[in-house]
Amino acid sequence: MSKKYDVPYKMYLEEKEIPKKWYNVRSDMKVKQAPLLNPGTLQPMGAADLSPVFCEELVAQELDDATAYYDIPDEIHDFYKIYRPSPLMHAEYLEKALDTPAHIFYKFEGNNTSGSHKLNSALAQAYYAKKQGLKGVTTETGAGQWGTALSMACAFFGLDCKVYMVKVSYEQKPFRREVMRTYGAEVTPSPSDTTNIGREILKAHPGTTGSLGCAISEAVEVAVTNEGYRYVLGSVLNQVLLHQSVIGLETKAACDKYGIKPDMIIGCAGGGSNLGGLIAPFMGEKLRGEADYDIIAVEPASCPSFTRGKYVYDFCDTGMVTPLAKMYTLGHDFIPSANHAGGLRFHGMSPVLSQLYHDGYMRAVSVEQTEVFKAAELFARTEGILPAPESSHAIRTAIDEALKCKETGEEKTIVFGLTGTGYFDMVAYEQFNNGTMNDYIPTDEDLAKGFASIPKRSDGSYIE
Amino acid sequence: MSKKYDVPYKMYLEEKEIPKKWYNVRSDMKVKQAPLLNPGTLQPMGAADLSPVFCEELVAQELDDATAYYDIPDEIHDFYKIYRPSPLMHAEYLEKALDTPAHIFYKFEGNNTSGSHKLNSALAQAYYAKKQGLKGVTTETGAGQWGTALSMACAFFGLDCKVYMVKVSYEQKPFRREVMRTYGAEVTPSPSDTTNIGREILKAHPGTTGSLGCAISEAVEVAVTNEGYRYVLGSVLNQVLLHQSVIGLETKAACDKYGIKPDMIIGCAGGGSNLGGLIAPFMGEKLRGEADYDIIAVEPASCPSFTRGKYVYDFCDTGMVTPLAKMYTLGHDFIPSANHAGGLRFHGMSPVLSQLYHDGYMRAVSVEQTEVFKAAELFARTEGILPAPESSHAIRTAIDEALKCKETGEEKTIVFGLTGTGYFDMVAYEQFNNGTMNDYIPTDEDLAKGFASIPKRSDGSYIE
Repeated sequence: MSKKYDVPYKMYLEEKEIPKKWYNVRSDMKVKQAPLLNPGTLQPMGAADLSPVFCEELVAQELDDATAYYDIPDEIHDFYKIYRPSPLMHAEYLEKALDTPAHIFYKFEGNNTSGSHKLNSALAQAYYAKKQGLKGVTTETGAGQWGTALSMACAFFGLDCKVYMVKVSYEQKPFRREVMRTYGAEVTPSPSDTTNIGREILKAHPGTTGSLGCAISEAVEVAVTNEGYRYVLGSVLNQVLLHQSVIGLETKAACDKYGIKPDMIIGCAGGGSNLGGLIAPFMGEKLRGEADYDIIAVEPASCPSFTRGKYVYDFCDTGMVTPLAKMYTLGHDFIPSANHAGGLRFHGMSPVLSQLYHDGYMRAVSVEQTEVFKAAELFARTEGILPAPESSHAIRTAIDEALKCKETGEEKTIVFGLTGTGYFDMVAYEQFNNGTMNDYIPTDEDLAKGFASIPKRSDGSYIE
Repeated sequence: MSKKYDVPYKMYLEEKEIPKKWYNVRSDMKVKQAPLLNPGTLQPMGAADLSPVFCEELVAQELDDATAYYDIPDEIHDFYKIYRPSPLMHAEYLEKALDTPAHIFYKFEGNNTSGSHKLNSALAQAYYAKKQGLKGVTTETGAGQWGTALSMACAFFGLDCKVYMVKVSYEQKPFRREVMRTYGAEVTPSPSDTTNIGREILKAHPGTTGSLGCAISEAVEVAVTNEGYRYVLGSVLNQVLLHQSVIGLETKAACDKYGIKPDMIIGCAGGGSNLGGLIAPFMGEKLRGEADYDIIAVEPASCPSFTRGKYVYDFCDTGMVTPLAKMYTLGHDFIPSANHAGGLRFHGMSPVLSQLYHDGYMRAVSVEQTEVFKAAELFARTEGILPAPESSHAIRTAIDEALKCKETGEEKTIVFGLTGTGYFDMVAYEQFNNGTMNDYIPTDEDLAKGFASIPKRSDGSYIE
């Protein structure tokens, strides 16, 4: 272990050093991401199309590719100071265990009750909903990480929060459901009889345990049919990447303060909210030609949007209620194997990250889940923190890169994003501890089935 | 809300400000706590009696009432820096919600994977076991908080860790069990067929779901019958209070750094490990006549050792394998009602805290659990952190005292200990959210049954 960096183990910025502005990486992209399209007309969605579903200021943020910096409102700083700045950690015990000349740092976003970085955007979206004078917001949640974050934010701002939770999770994963209820959210198992779409699905499939697509449809229906409500979403959208830029801005500020010069920035990627936030200011430097970084997106081999998907227009959800987005996609009907543990199971990817990847500004790797959990175990035992399965994808790749440095003797500086803790993911850890966890890599035939669901023009071509 | 304190919301000391020494409050007690007695001979236990069960240096700490400060070994600091210093938080949103002139601060010990302050002593005990050249340690655990902390510490120091977990918890609360296994601990449901006492109990009670007393007996048997093993315990003992003094020393250092002058220090009390650690340096000042503080122990009304117990010698465990300790006790057969949620269910109390309470240096209050969960809910919604049920006892009393200030107009400064997070306690929160949580206060008859188990001399008198 080299002594290149003489820094504290946990690097906390001071409260007054929390970023005052979000950075909009789109402002520095020479080639912008493709716009969202109306699935009926294939015309770009404007503010008028999006405003019935989303809050006004969030729609403006969604559509704004030009403004580089957004002032962060004081009310959001009031909440930030409860859990931010999050620490940048020097993983010196992991370095020691690997006996690598590499220097490993991680930005830890799990030190809040929601257990992940999701709170950064939940907070912003709840704030703008409150500012608009709304009564409440609706959303869907699978395992409950996003729903928990939104519940906390709504409790803070005094906003009603209606969460549609996939029924199988509602019943089998009651802990996050109860966290949401403790924060005052109304949690409804989906499909439910509270919506038209829910009632239709229940009639057609009486015993169904639900799906994320169905929960999205219910949450959107409630938002557009109830006065004073809007729908909010925790990933994929441009606005979410803007809010999540606070992760990268803090990381960069801590690196600058402590003299850390990253060669490599690694983040896990599901819909892209964490990765997009973590890399934002570094990508900005790269886009402006001011610095170069090796930026790596890590995805599960069982849901390989970047590494095996198509870069075309597709629906963001299984239920086809969302606009079309141009992104790396496995097809909106693609569902990862039931063997797949944890999140990162989204079939698509943030359009912004998709464009940046397409243009060669970042690379992507896929990793298998038993290897991911081996990395998680080593990390837990050396660094203390029990990581979320999602975050452990980034740990796996950070370890792999550090081991490559051991072979080559290179003293690279690696920064990765630790998005959250695994306290609510112990069923997956149990499988790993018992040796009953399996890997699953979709065959080309499996992928072909997913691709078949991607919408096509009448001439049979993809919409690009 | 007054502006008396212009301090950050989260007050982090720097890594170099982590205490270098533990403080031994016994050194300043004019009347020392009574010694542990051999239950057979009623003679004080010396090093020779304790060493077959406990590590040598820990035995020395246990018996040392004179040394005021102990140097904290470097190896313990190596682990401290992963999760310490813990923050002292200014509960300004709780103050605002209560509309109180009081100033409320809390020391948050839950920001580590074990989720509580227990790690402070687990770490020290694992270190001394390693230093002695032992192979491993054994312990018991109920819900798993202590076992988790010990597993983390053993993983860090490369020590074998055998945890006997009460069978009903092993089966019904698998999450903490899996956290322990992830850290490499061997977790055995108790009673088991790995010990003589376990086999006897299984033979006598084939369907038993176990008890903490039985798990203690198994862990002690394994420690004394296997070469290179010792038994470790997470509360009650003098050595544990010594290790936990790091909580109070950091709290005091942060108070001094930021100009905070506590009038009142509040902590929850089960066996006393958190309370004893939190108050240590403040109690020292009080014992030396240098300052005065209103120190309050908060216990559940369903397990009221301080407020309704007897101050006499009793066994520390239901199984009567431990020495006798002079302490406030409800009788070692006393078991809180099944309605009781969370920890703090110990029938006795730290002998040191018992003596201090007996001598009037602190007071005690008891609180009912639905009121405790109301406080927890308010705290979660205003301050973000979802508190452990144990910690929420201290929150309840802090709120009650702040509301008294609202009546009187007093601007008191309240510091309380937030020992941990409630992520693994969502079953209790679910009961509260559903309105199915009950209070239970033992009747005098209930208490009489517990008192009947307290050992007596042949003349029928208690051992005092």
